[in-house]
Amino acid sequence: MWPSSTLLELLHIEHPIVQAPMPGASSPLLAAAVSNAGGLGSLGCGFLSVSELRAELEATQRATNRPFNVNFVMYETPRSNRKRVQHARDLMAPHYARLQLGNVPHAIAKARVFDAEALAVVIAAHPRVVSFQFGLPGAAFIAALKDHGIAVMGMATSVREALDQERRGADVIVAQGWEAGGHRGTYLSSIDGGGIGTLALVPQVVDAVNVPVIAAGGIADGRGILAAFALGASGVQLGTAFMTCDEAGVPTVHKQALLDAADDETRLTKTFSGRPARVLVNKYIEEMTLHEHALPDFPIMNMLTEPLQRASVARGSRDFVALWAGQGVGMSRAMPAAQLVGTLVDEAALALSRFRSRTANS
Amino acid sequence: MWPSSTLLELLHIEHPIVQAPMPGASSPLLAAAVSNAGGLGSLGCGFLSVSELRAELEATQRATNRPFNVNFVMYETPRSNRKRVQHARDLMAPHYARLQLGNVPHAIAKARVFDAEALAVVIAAHPRVVSFQFGLPGAAFIAALKDHGIAVMGMATSVREALDQERRGADVIVAQGWEAGGHRGTYLSSIDGGGIGTLALVPQVVDAVNVPVIAAGGIADGRGILAAFALGASGVQLGTAFMTCDEAGVPTVHKQALLDAADDETRLTKTFSGRPARVLVNKYIEEMTLHEHALPDFPIMNMLTEPLQRASVARGSRDFVALWAGQGVGMSRAMPAAQLVGTLVDEAALALSRFRSRTANS
Repeated sequence: MWPSSTLLELLHIEHPIVQAPMPGASSPLLAAAVSNAGGLGSLGCGFLSVSELRAELEATQRATNRPFNVNFVMYETPRSNRKRVQHARDLMAPHYARLQLGNVPHAIAKARVFDAEALAVVIAAHPRVVSFQFGLPGAAFIAALKDHGIAVMGMATSVREALDQERRGADVIVAQGWEAGGHRGTYLSSIDGGGIGTLALVPQVVDAVNVPVIAAGGIADGRGILAAFALGASGVQLGTAFMTCDEAGVPTVHKQALLDAADDETRLTKTFSGRPARVLVNKYIEEMTLHEHALPDFPIMNMLTEPLQRASVARGSRDFVALWAGQGVGMSRAMPAAQLVGTLVDEAALALSRFRSRTANS
Repeated sequence: MWPSSTLLELLHIEHPIVQAPMPGASSPLLAAAVSNAGGLGSLGCGFLSVSELRAELEATQRATNRPFNVNFVMYETPRSNRKRVQHARDLMAPHYARLQLGNVPHAIAKARVFDAEALAVVIAAHPRVVSFQFGLPGAAFIAALKDHGIAVMGMATSVREALDQERRGADVIVAQGWEAGGHRGTYLSSIDGGGIGTLALVPQVVDAVNVPVIAAGGIADGRGILAAFALGASGVQLGTAFMTCDEAGVPTVHKQALLDAADDETRLTKTFSGRPARVLVNKYIEEMTLHEHALPDFPIMNMLTEPLQRASVARGSRDFVALWAGQGVGMSRAMPAAQLVGTLVDEAALALSRFRSRTANS
């Protein structure tokens, strides 16, 4: 039924629907459910230790023998800036006090660079796809993955970034539009210039590169899927839509916020991690946005905000949780992941058949 | 051939393609060319005096007997803030000196509120559609237009704004996505919350209101048109794509900038008018963005920046021109407007037939 089978053949999947890797929210259960339903499940492994990574891969492979995707986060080691870190700790102190969390911890960067050890673990597990955020690893790493028959997937927020990734050997590129929830993947374009809406971004990327393009950002149902194919995409990636699935590792308070939210309630904020990311507006953001320009480098803020988030969730409060959400949030639905994949396929098929009959009648 | 004929029947047009009203860039010539080709041409009349408005309407009606659209800008009378105005004049002074323009003029608001006099002129001319930016006029004005068989078109950047316009009697709503060039139409949502990408905005607006929805923002060719219909829109509005047409009242230096630009070169800026608008980045913006928070209310800045823009154009320089542009700018093409309408129709038809044949074969 799909207008393009390029991605299906490349990734050995039945439906060109990718569940976005979402560190914290994705899980072996969610990824396996999506892959077992014929889509491509993803694991967000950018913040895992090597032993956690190994365990995550094993758990996924116990739950599915279908292709899945393993995602890593590329970033520069944060510059040591004691003054900024201390300023951030001072800003956190009243929030910590309010939630009775004691002293603000000493901040260290808590994310894992994709290194030789991680590469070896991934190659041993041999997933169908490895994807990267904020750019791609070095040539030797790309070559090692490809030599082992693992497809390499980049994420671009502009034509400039898509061309960079094609040149470095990406087999497929996710074009991440402005609508997307979570972190902006921008790494070469300026952050303002890289905020290109999915509907404008996808055709320009498709025109610029020869590899298949997956549309991401604002897609939540069969209408968005059909639109992505109309724009020239070979597939779609959905994040927010999978966050309200039963298998997603998302706290109830966050799921309910997604189900309640309107289209105009998301914001870009650097206040949770130090990099711009799309979330639902809440008390923490309202209070912290003022200080956004003076925060330490990504991902140092993660370390400072994680205890706040856990405490907020424990109290059933949205106030201090990073409520990751894309602009399609108003279309959120709660159901098991396999049912969501089936629903998306049915909706896209129905929309396609409507186009067909209208055209045939004219 | 179109998947929906709702808009064609409502507006008595052949193709559901609207040329966006663009004060300064739209013109009777451009509007008539689009309408004569079967689309809906638009006049941007928000900054015209009543006599200019009358002349514009007459010129258009001499050039076409097809339906067209007349657009007005709704805004609050700017608060008198002498300090801010003086600060803006001080900021302008070095630019004026650089372009040998003499003293910076005393700023007055140069835009026209849609008043009883303008209403009478419009009703006498009886265009098929009158559209509004930044909200709708009062109930009596809406009723007068509708009583005379003139359709009222609103522009919404969020579900909240679309619901407001439906309640006030809009017959059709343009859903303006984040990608759109020129001014953000946001007036009820916060400016950050109202920056919703077209692909996410359109289906949520379609779900919320019962009137037909026109998708705007990032659409530049047949792929974008087909995507808009997939999302549930009944038509499309294109601005940037028409700015490089022969008939557009756009200086050559601006047209060339559009033809040269890449997807990641647009920015939102308040520095030209006092309200956020999407343009190509240039020297003026790079120097003025720093002062953006301290500028006087819309549209006072227009008065201060117009002489700069004219001087910059006269020198063949992009440096001080408001290079209005949407994020689909990388798809710009130079041709007569009638040829562009024909090309868009052909591209959409081809894309539709591809969907049909692929589906039929599966």
